[in-house]
Amino acid sequence: MGEFDLIERFFWRADGQGPRRAALGNGDDCALLAPASGMQLAVSTDTLVEGRHFLSTVDPARLGHKALAVNLSDLAACGAAPMAFTLALTLPRVDEAWLSGFAQGLLALADAHGCELVGGDTTAGPLAITITAMGEVPAGQALLRSGAKVGDDIWVSGWPGEAWLALQVFRGQAPEGVSAEVFAQVRQRMECPTPRVALGQALLGVATSAIDISDGLLGDLHHILRRSGMAAVLDTAALPCSPCLARLPRPTQLDAILAGGDDYELLFTAPATQRDHVAHLSTTLGLPLTCIGYAHETEAGVPRVALQEGEQCLPNRWTSFDHFKA
Amino acid sequence: MGEFDLIERFFWRADGQGPRRAALGNGDDCALLAPASGMQLAVSTDTLVEGRHFLSTVDPARLGHKALAVNLSDLAACGAAPMAFTLALTLPRVDEAWLSGFAQGLLALADAHGCELVGGDTTAGPLAITITAMGEVPAGQALLRSGAKVGDDIWVSGWPGEAWLALQVFRGQAPEGVSAEVFAQVRQRMECPTPRVALGQALLGVATSAIDISDGLLGDLHHILRRSGMAAVLDTAALPCSPCLARLPRPTQLDAILAGGDDYELLFTAPATQRDHVAHLSTTLGLPLTCIGYAHETEAGVPRVALQEGEQCLPNRWTSFDHFKA
Repeated sequence: MGEFDLIERFFWRADGQGPRRAALGNGDDCALLAPASGMQLAVSTDTLVEGRHFLSTVDPARLGHKALAVNLSDLAACGAAPMAFTLALTLPRVDEAWLSGFAQGLLALADAHGCELVGGDTTAGPLAITITAMGEVPAGQALLRSGAKVGDDIWVSGWPGEAWLALQVFRGQAPEGVSAEVFAQVRQRMECPTPRVALGQALLGVATSAIDISDGLLGDLHHILRRSGMAAVLDTAALPCSPCLARLPRPTQLDAILAGGDDYELLFTAPATQRDHVAHLSTTLGLPLTCIGYAHETEAGVPRVALQEGEQCLPNRWTSFDHFKA
Repeated sequence: MGEFDLIERFFWRADGQGPRRAALGNGDDCALLAPASGMQLAVSTDTLVEGRHFLSTVDPARLGHKALAVNLSDLAACGAAPMAFTLALTLPRVDEAWLSGFAQGLLALADAHGCELVGGDTTAGPLAITITAMGEVPAGQALLRSGAKVGDDIWVSGWPGEAWLALQVFRGQAPEGVSAEVFAQVRQRMECPTPRVALGQALLGVATSAIDISDGLLGDLHHILRRSGMAAVLDTAALPCSPCLARLPRPTQLDAILAGGDDYELLFTAPATQRDHVAHLSTTLGLPLTCIGYAHETEAGVPRVALQEGEQCLPNRWTSFDHFKA
């Protein structure tokens, strides 16, 4: 089967199936998009490489889901509404069952967010997936990393650390007490993350900065602090601890929550005056939103994060996940 | 060196260096772009994989140039003006000399076209480069593959076939009579193609359809014919034959011109009434534009291409290059 057939057969849909935001979808040299008047276009690119970001045994539908989810998560962190995406797929061979599953998982998530596949490229080579997602955000209102202010609360969505636990099991380093039920749940979170798209849009005008937790809570908080010229105090006692992590020793829980990557929850800052509003959002969205600390002025420009467990200071022994250090 | 340092060190430039079309460049979750009022956004994605699209020994500056050039060529085929691009770079290791060369070639071409690097992702893995380029085109005016009409002339820019000749030499299948001087010239064309950006924009309102020749002249013509519901006659005697191909046997010349891919010239159709205008464009742009045939009605919907050498019919023994057939 040829390159052109692949795109048409597995990824291209006739008009009327799925969302149609693009003036011209895949099949021409370029896709054509028209953001509405007064809107900016938000653009994000992420690559998943076999053996690095996913195992060769992963269910292709889950992989299709995740490849788009990590990009929608970046749009969510800006508060953008997904519009369209392009897919660059490098495949060692044409495996029709695999492609069919991959397309199904990918397009199901795309449809759920009204996000249209508008173009792509398939090439032969080691398995890798690069998606570029595009969304709309009202001009000048996008959530940035650079907006945190002195005294802002620091919030996190959901249960960070669950994806980390699944990864430990796959690495043969499962902590004791991980039941089959817990593993199934955290595996789902690792392989099929939910991008917080509705939350991101709801935070426009509410949050002062936002980022998605792909590299670990502390590592991603550091990005916000550096860009905002802030330091922070986190209260580790306030960290949301997933029921899946409940039976783990406390130091392991903290490893998972503070440094486990791949969660795709949102970390954001908001003025204390927004506390009631954020609590209300949590109820509306059915998603835990937890205040875990606050931003303050730096000493000599260092974006330091101090950890406190109640009144006690904890040493910060965690660093961000980094592909080229691993 | 970490992932974040890599992006900042090699690809991120302070304000004032290079073009600044984006409201927010790389470094945040998303880049933010604002196409001007009345403009559509044209989006193209292409991946280059080591060993498939380039040799491991290629000069990194040329590779950086080419990775962007193939995407700008897609924008050119739509008549779009380049605005911005994202870069997804998968690297087996951090080689600073390589990265520096790659960035230099990439950003030099970007600057030449006022096209800003606005985001990206670097990951560890087998060397591959995916670029998504975005451009602007007046709403409703983009050149499509589907617009060719009965009686339209078929035109091609430049000297298709030169990149093919370089590839033959690299494969150890050099035809006789390729001098060192010719090889240097065709190698430059293969490794450092010139996207026909100015031509594409000049063809808005002139051409009825356009495509860039990445898969070979006949293969790409076939895409236009299929989308437009047309058939075609090409006069092989009219094909532009590069001076670099002049000493090759005629059948080899035809292989190169009709089926050699990777040229990134534009193939387009235009009504006969535009002949003088296209000839004038050729002079203005200093670029050969050659009329090589015409479009006509299909028989039973088959987008067939008939080849004639003067009065004689030639059998069509060429098919499009296809990554999964090779």
